[in-house]
Amino acid sequence: MSAAEPKPVSMFDVARRAGVSHQTVSRVVNDAPMVAAATRAKVKAAIADLGYRPNRSARTLAGGTVRSVTVFTFDTSLYGTAETLRGIEDAASAAGFTVLVSVLDPEQTYTEGDILGRLSHDGAPAIVIAHDETTHRARRILRKAQPGAVVATGDDMLLAEPDADDWLVPLDDRLVAKRATKYLLSMGHRTVHYLAMPGKARRQDGWSEALVEAGIEPHEVVRSGWTIGSAAAAAAGLVADPEVTAIMCGNDDLAFGVLHAAHHAGRSIPGDLSVIGCDDSPMAAYHVPGLTTVDLDFRGVGRSAFELLRQRLEGGPKPRPAWRSPELIVRETSGPPRQRGPHPL
Amino acid sequence: MSAAEPKPVSMFDVARRAGVSHQTVSRVVNDAPMVAAATRAKVKAAIADLGYRPNRSARTLAGGTVRSVTVFTFDTSLYGTAETLRGIEDAASAAGFTVLVSVLDPEQTYTEGDILGRLSHDGAPAIVIAHDETTHRARRILRKAQPGAVVATGDDMLLAEPDADDWLVPLDDRLVAKRATKYLLSMGHRTVHYLAMPGKARRQDGWSEALVEAGIEPHEVVRSGWTIGSAAAAAAGLVADPEVTAIMCGNDDLAFGVLHAAHHAGRSIPGDLSVIGCDDSPMAAYHVPGLTTVDLDFRGVGRSAFELLRQRLEGGPKPRPAWRSPELIVRETSGPPRQRGPHPL
Repeated sequence: MSAAEPKPVSMFDVARRAGVSHQTVSRVVNDAPMVAAATRAKVKAAIADLGYRPNRSARTLAGGTVRSVTVFTFDTSLYGTAETLRGIEDAASAAGFTVLVSVLDPEQTYTEGDILGRLSHDGAPAIVIAHDETTHRARRILRKAQPGAVVATGDDMLLAEPDADDWLVPLDDRLVAKRATKYLLSMGHRTVHYLAMPGKARRQDGWSEALVEAGIEPHEVVRSGWTIGSAAAAAAGLVADPEVTAIMCGNDDLAFGVLHAAHHAGRSIPGDLSVIGCDDSPMAAYHVPGLTTVDLDFRGVGRSAFELLRQRLEGGPKPRPAWRSPELIVRETSGPPRQRGPHPL
Repeated sequence: MSAAEPKPVSMFDVARRAGVSHQTVSRVVNDAPMVAAATRAKVKAAIADLGYRPNRSARTLAGGTVRSVTVFTFDTSLYGTAETLRGIEDAASAAGFTVLVSVLDPEQTYTEGDILGRLSHDGAPAIVIAHDETTHRARRILRKAQPGAVVATGDDMLLAEPDADDWLVPLDDRLVAKRATKYLLSMGHRTVHYLAMPGKARRQDGWSEALVEAGIEPHEVVRSGWTIGSAAAAAAGLVADPEVTAIMCGNDDLAFGVLHAAHHAGRSIPGDLSVIGCDDSPMAAYHVPGLTTVDLDFRGVGRSAFELLRQRLEGGPKPRPAWRSPELIVRETSGPPRQRGPHPL
């Protein structure tokens, strides 16, 4: 692009000229209802004056009245993914966009053509919920093919990608797990064990950092699948060991599996064993006993990802993140370890 | 269409001529791997001999190597929807189709243009997971616009639609709830109360039929929202009433809410109160106590819906339904009512 090429007119320039909000400009451009006739005329005049042309990728080829965004994601039945998607849908629907979801199978390797072929049209805007190697790869492909029309959300490994840019909504999974582990240590547990989901290494990193900073050598991580059942099976050894007094789990479903296994092993919660999840899924508050976990506001993350994409398409300033900070929710599955005699050396 | 117009050549005609399966023809048509060169040549010869042209709606406009199906659905975070979607994705992926998901907001009214605009291209094949008025309406719109490229799954109210055809995968929700209610009555409960989800009236119909057939006047249904929390609040009155000994719930999440409320009201399960869900969601087996519920094999339903769509596109015979019959899974939340003195008249 030559330096002499004029900066394209943005929706914000039109808004300033017409003396209205950029949302109003967006509504006029997209023939949305709820705009007074006089306002509409003012906006149309400003558009004509400035020679504003809406970003092509913000509009479909089919006449420009339906705008869509394609979301690339991992398994939508997981709580974090489902909630992020709900947040994207809420914000997109309010802005008059339709959402198409494309679920990528972690077992498959997709070519560039496979990924781009899933867009509703060439250059269609996309959000990637980057969660595993397959979704990260999809993000790279989209970023390369249409850098101006893609936004990604995921854990903070996004920031470490070689092509990382500012159009990301990263969640600090490492910090989340670190704080939860520190909370358990602060109650007097001599160590904390970790039950890991497939992939998703950042939470595990945070757990191990908390231990190392406290001068504790982390035990080997125990690996689980995604289901409650696989967690119950994977944790059988941990819950049978009376030396294990605290387990941090990769997510809430894994924690429910551990609690089930602990119940059948006759261990009392939290007297014999503290268990912490991560997600604050709907069951967490209604499980008996209530699950201590971390609220991650995935829905807010999804809404933020959509707003970021919209600003990107419309040439507006980068919006501030609008989700709640992760928060430890202490319920009934965590507490100090039972008093015991001195540790046998 | 005039009576003299020849019947179009189908993939099955090609398969017969080439002496291969229709799946092999499908693979050749779609340039999929795993076909021996000699077989490919045989199929191509048969295609040329018969003048076979693949169904346009089975192939995208972008060169015909990527085929997609758009799934219209209600809230994807509900277990039944998420699992049906997984079943569709499994079968579609195995057949080389990509799946795009379009979530419809139950609060919105969509025009014909809104619905058709969400297809990846005009005539693109679609599956509707029909679950509420909005999704039923989408099915009608698609059925009218492109009758040969749409299949629907949902409860048996689908069969009562004025435009009902053979391309449906209905689940008999009424029968499911009737059997579960009869099971509770067979254990000696004098009546069964019902906690209802929004919409979804067929399960409720089955519950009330079972009672009426047993000569019992059904109590007023208690209404809940979709969340565990709303169910716990809605059931507060039921669980506080010692005359209530059995509650059938619209789905498992509602049952978890009832169990939480019962725990806090100090009622023992199943001694004081039997609770039955519907879905057999992953938590049901791992809840303490284990939830008695009905396994509905939503994943099998999803797979069947995709296979039905594929046969429809390829002009093949209607496949037989390939999902497991609903099955009552008796766990620990149901049992006979406690022995009591004669009922005070």
